[in-house]
Amino acid sequence: MPAKMDLKAFVRDIPDFPKAGILFRDITPLLADAEALSCAIDRLVEPFKGKEIDVVAAVEARGFIFGSAVARALEAGFVPIRKKGKLPFQTESVGYGLEYGRDVVEVHTDAVRPGTKVLMVDDLLATGGTMAAACQLIEKLGGTIRGLTFLIELTGLNGRKKLNRYDLHAVLIY
Amino acid sequence: MPAKMDLKAFVRDIPDFPKAGILFRDITPLLADAEALSCAIDRLVEPFKGKEIDVVAAVEARGFIFGSAVARALEAGFVPIRKKGKLPFQTESVGYGLEYGRDVVEVHTDAVRPGTKVLMVDDLLATGGTMAAACQLIEKLGGTIRGLTFLIELTGLNGRKKLNRYDLHAVLIY
Repeated sequence: MPAKMDLKAFVRDIPDFPKAGILFRDITPLLADAEALSCAIDRLVEPFKGKEIDVVAAVEARGFIFGSAVARALEAGFVPIRKKGKLPFQTESVGYGLEYGRDVVEVHTDAVRPGTKVLMVDDLLATGGTMAAACQLIEKLGGTIRGLTFLIELTGLNGRKKLNRYDLHAVLIY
Repeated sequence: MPAKMDLKAFVRDIPDFPKAGILFRDITPLLADAEALSCAIDRLVEPFKGKEIDVVAAVEARGFIFGSAVARALEAGFVPIRKKGKLPFQTESVGYGLEYGRDVVEVHTDAVRPGTKVLMVDDLLATGGTMAAACQLIEKLGGTIRGLTFLIELTGLNGRKKLNRYDLHAVLIY
């Protein structure tokens, strides 16, 4: 597998989605291509190889796409972070502001213990609001965030600034 | 990695979730354990190794957990099937009945072409309603379903009957 495939060639630009003026970076052509998918997983993992990651955590739904594949590549477990009311066991939660109203992310209280080393993964870094809440959630349980890895970073939205305490890696920069 | 780990030991029973009388099979302890997660992926894939799968398809959100990991293990691509309005490109859709009201699953029209060989994956087979709709969606685009693979099958809900046209595999039977 070529380590440096041109992954941007598999990302499709869709103007005006989800609303007028927004250019959506659609990764479904990348996902559908076996070689591009495998290369994307390798490149998400690359900076964290050999860094002692216990679990990989991701927020539903799109974060789940790369979560367990990245976990397996690092010989780590996977921790799903979900929206309110979806997890069946005792949960910890963090609320955060959205453009309109608020949302809540939850995780099982036994998913991360004090000192658990966690790598956060998502397909896209935009404003960073959801990821900041997810990091806060992991830290509330005593987890140590070893890094954040994204397939795509939209630099124009300054999400990196909100997450500047962390070792943040993005495969594709727009 | 032991191929026949006791994966059921990592599934937690939660009574009365999401409502009274329902026994929820919680797989988050399995996901969080690196070895159990890796073994689960191997066992989801096992019956379909060497069977020419082009893409693995899964329905959000929980289906995504195993989707790309199974895809990678089979050297296939991954096709996300989503709820209404989430996918940015042209979509095909199928509606289906739920206990209360109806729901819709969608996929990009270019995600599957006539003759594409597809493996469907999900964490849980319950009534099979969502999976039946997802299969119909893939077939509407001309895809050939080579099989269905689930981590857990709840036999009491007869989902297998609704899907009896397909080569259906479940790792853990309850």
